[in-house]
Amino acid sequence: MTKTLDGSLHRYTYADAYDRMCQLAHALDDLGLERGDRIASVAMNNYRHLELYFGPACSGRSLHMCNPRLPDDHFQYIINDAADSVVFLDPPFVEKVAQNADEFESVEQYVVLSDEVPEGTPLEPVVAYEDLLADQPTEYDWPALDEDEECGMCYTSGTTGKPKGVEYSHRGVYLHSMASGLADGNGISESDVVMPVVPMFHANGWGVPYAATLFGATQVLPGVHTDPEPLARLIDDEDVTMSAAVPTIWLGMAEFLEENPEVDISSIDRLTVGGSAPPESLIRKYDEEYDAPILQGWGMTEMSPLGSLSILRRELAEADPDEQYAYRAKAGIPVPGIQTRIRDEDGNEVPRDGETFGELEVRGPWVTDSYHNRPEANAESFTDDGWFKTGDIATMDDLGYIDLVDRDKDVIKSGGEWISSVDLENALMAHEAVSEATVIAVDHEKWQERPMACVVLREGADATPAELEAHLAESFPDWWLPDEYMFLDQIPQTSTGKFDKKVLRERFDDVVLEATEDE
Amino acid sequence: MTKTLDGSLHRYTYADAYDRMCQLAHALDDLGLERGDRIASVAMNNYRHLELYFGPACSGRSLHMCNPRLPDDHFQYIINDAADSVVFLDPPFVEKVAQNADEFESVEQYVVLSDEVPEGTPLEPVVAYEDLLADQPTEYDWPALDEDEECGMCYTSGTTGKPKGVEYSHRGVYLHSMASGLADGNGISESDVVMPVVPMFHANGWGVPYAATLFGATQVLPGVHTDPEPLARLIDDEDVTMSAAVPTIWLGMAEFLEENPEVDISSIDRLTVGGSAPPESLIRKYDEEYDAPILQGWGMTEMSPLGSLSILRRELAEADPDEQYAYRAKAGIPVPGIQTRIRDEDGNEVPRDGETFGELEVRGPWVTDSYHNRPEANAESFTDDGWFKTGDIATMDDLGYIDLVDRDKDVIKSGGEWISSVDLENALMAHEAVSEATVIAVDHEKWQERPMACVVLREGADATPAELEAHLAESFPDWWLPDEYMFLDQIPQTSTGKFDKKVLRERFDDVVLEATEDE
Repeated sequence: MTKTLDGSLHRYTYADAYDRMCQLAHALDDLGLERGDRIASVAMNNYRHLELYFGPACSGRSLHMCNPRLPDDHFQYIINDAADSVVFLDPPFVEKVAQNADEFESVEQYVVLSDEVPEGTPLEPVVAYEDLLADQPTEYDWPALDEDEECGMCYTSGTTGKPKGVEYSHRGVYLHSMASGLADGNGISESDVVMPVVPMFHANGWGVPYAATLFGATQVLPGVHTDPEPLARLIDDEDVTMSAAVPTIWLGMAEFLEENPEVDISSIDRLTVGGSAPPESLIRKYDEEYDAPILQGWGMTEMSPLGSLSILRRELAEADPDEQYAYRAKAGIPVPGIQTRIRDEDGNEVPRDGETFGELEVRGPWVTDSYHNRPEANAESFTDDGWFKTGDIATMDDLGYIDLVDRDKDVIKSGGEWISSVDLENALMAHEAVSEATVIAVDHEKWQERPMACVVLREGADATPAELEAHLAESFPDWWLPDEYMFLDQIPQTSTGKFDKKVLRERFDDVVLEATEDE
Repeated sequence: MTKTLDGSLHRYTYADAYDRMCQLAHALDDLGLERGDRIASVAMNNYRHLELYFGPACSGRSLHMCNPRLPDDHFQYIINDAADSVVFLDPPFVEKVAQNADEFESVEQYVVLSDEVPEGTPLEPVVAYEDLLADQPTEYDWPALDEDEECGMCYTSGTTGKPKGVEYSHRGVYLHSMASGLADGNGISESDVVMPVVPMFHANGWGVPYAATLFGATQVLPGVHTDPEPLARLIDDEDVTMSAAVPTIWLGMAEFLEENPEVDISSIDRLTVGGSAPPESLIRKYDEEYDAPILQGWGMTEMSPLGSLSILRRELAEADPDEQYAYRAKAGIPVPGIQTRIRDEDGNEVPRDGETFGELEVRGPWVTDSYHNRPEANAESFTDDGWFKTGDIATMDDLGYIDLVDRDKDVIKSGGEWISSVDLENALMAHEAVSEATVIAVDHEKWQERPMACVVLREGADATPAELEAHLAESFPDWWLPDEYMFLDQIPQTSTGKFDKKVLRERFDDVVLEATEDE
């Protein structure tokens, strides 16, 4: 049985879904879509979106999953770059799509994912999804596809430049799904009840909808209801065993659960967390208070996305809890099937000592080998022998655990040594007077780059640069300490809520620090 | 750490094994082996055999795993048919190899898997494995292989005709290994301690050595010590979590454990059982007395071999124990990645009612699409659209569980209906006077075929055909009951200990039953 939530609860079985996937494939035929054509979805996690994951792909088309939170110029760019011919959209996104529709170059049809087209919808031509499917046959003569044919596409929402398109193949999705079912992976199985909170437009919903369907797990899709309360109640009501989301979701849910102790989420076997690293304290809290273990993972859109998971290796089974939590807060060990290496700027692999930084590179059957229409980005991101340069700066220890240190463009390259902006930021934000902090590189006469801290103080709190420096000096060597502290009212953020270092770098582009006498 | 047992205990790590796999690859280069050349192993489960699984394959050669229990004519046939150029053999098999060596057409080198060549070894040229590896470099520049290249080969030891060779590709072995790690499969993981008892020459050791190495599980290889006592003590001493063997191994171990209650095998998470169906009573006993669940599987050499596993579906989680055991005694549901269908003689799929028989057909990425050098067998066993006709007669129920009824050549085709010889045999052997029983088809004037029972009575016991017929009539419809009962001193057996129905069919080839008046 597949369970979905779409405002009210909608429940149906895989057999029901299959019938509708067949109907959808017929409807695409009737719309004149050819093999290899792309359609776009602008939708949240719901059962119709699940049907869009399969009906088009299995009939030889590709589903481009669009992030409706992109700024308009990027939103227009991705639909034109992908040359989508049909756009399927949830009713809440009618406005977003309509305000960009004039700029779409390839779209010939809009389909609103609902029973009826909402009154006043300014899209043309437009049809309701249920009208599109009605009266279509519930059997379909699926074509024999080549495994390398494209089945889906997502764009990376990079903080710099235009989004880059990643094409997914049937082969890659199949293998990624198998990896998602490994006992040494997410372990998705027939007996699971999975609830992907990560949006299905974000890196294939981390592959959960594909894997859950392959293994026949029950799927609970929360639709637009991603606030802590409805999510927690869904877990409790539906006995969800596995869920996947960014850390902020679980931070918010912890607050809700504290105030509502009658809600029980102990049916959870593991909460897969990715997107950014969860604080170790959050992992502890979910273990100790909710009996709901957090499993941290790392991946990228270019990797379908699964790259590593912080499962505990056998060597750590008897380790003390503090050591175990320290390992579980890392990005983890590579998922079987993924090769990793970490290289320094000269291209040499760095020692597996857990300390030496380098750029993390990956290779494997569900890692893309190029971006769509972006030869210049390809030259930068892919080696000749098939490695993808992730742009993440990382260490690896002797047990194979990867720890992410920084993004390549954020790390501060000071006199041939690297300084992690992330480590400095976390330490600054641990100071009682600091609300927000970000650390960027600024040019330096002698050291090429030096760190500069941009700090937002808590309301009513105060701190001098000297006080913050003394605080940081407790944890870092002298040469890591920022040369400058800028006190700001706020730190600019990206559309996904991350600190926007690009804006800060541009703002302080003309800062050049001079060498002091003792340097 | 990889642990192996080779007479005494031999322990080493994967890093140690890797060094030796590199040395082995260099040694094959020095022997002049080209890409695609085959070597043969005649060996039990030990660490040198594990090295043979990887060093040759990863350097572009193929390992042909030979069953040393084959009759001489078949043993000669498979080595000549595979055109093996080097034979690697355990010391206990020197005699077996030597008595056939004169007939080998392609073998240019023998390598005894030991420190020294045993005195008086009549093979020429011959070298000890350790001498072959000594002084070779412990790094190797592995070639980039095509995934479809052959990495291994096994022969089916069919009871009729010559053995048929099955070629395994890197692609197939990789995917089979991924399937072996699924939470919905064998679930082999990094934290496992696996002990394959099934010989490594038997269908890739059911793929356990490959999967355990991919996931980094500890491997415990029992060598020639496959009696109940050493196996049980290994499980206890090494905290084995997963083991794989035919049912007779676990039947024997149960007897040992009854007499030696101090030996504790409760470290076992699952005992994978295949080759033939374990009695339901054995599954119960291992649950109740040893806390060591038996997981039944079904597969074939042609399938690498994994096809189905009798995991309990969610729908059965709350079922009463009797119903659960009945399901767990079936062949199980297809492993994710394997497609199955059951067709009748007209090629129509039979209903999924758990009752209607048909031939089980399978398709999937680790199912072979042809036999080596056997075009006539290929035409018989493979459909044009990639299905392998297993020769197994089976039913499937509405939950997708497969139940094996008979081998195609053993099922009795009576007037357009099929009668399961296996069901009749099991019922006959449940009669107190019967020691052994087998049921074969004999020609019939009107019904084409009718069942004839061949029965061996227990010493001192007696039973008439009428008594046996009355016994069977309690369980089966009239038209299933055998027309004839032959009382024999013994039933001929194959080299693998199965009843040899081929011999019986030949012996009773001239029997033609006449139609009776009321038919």
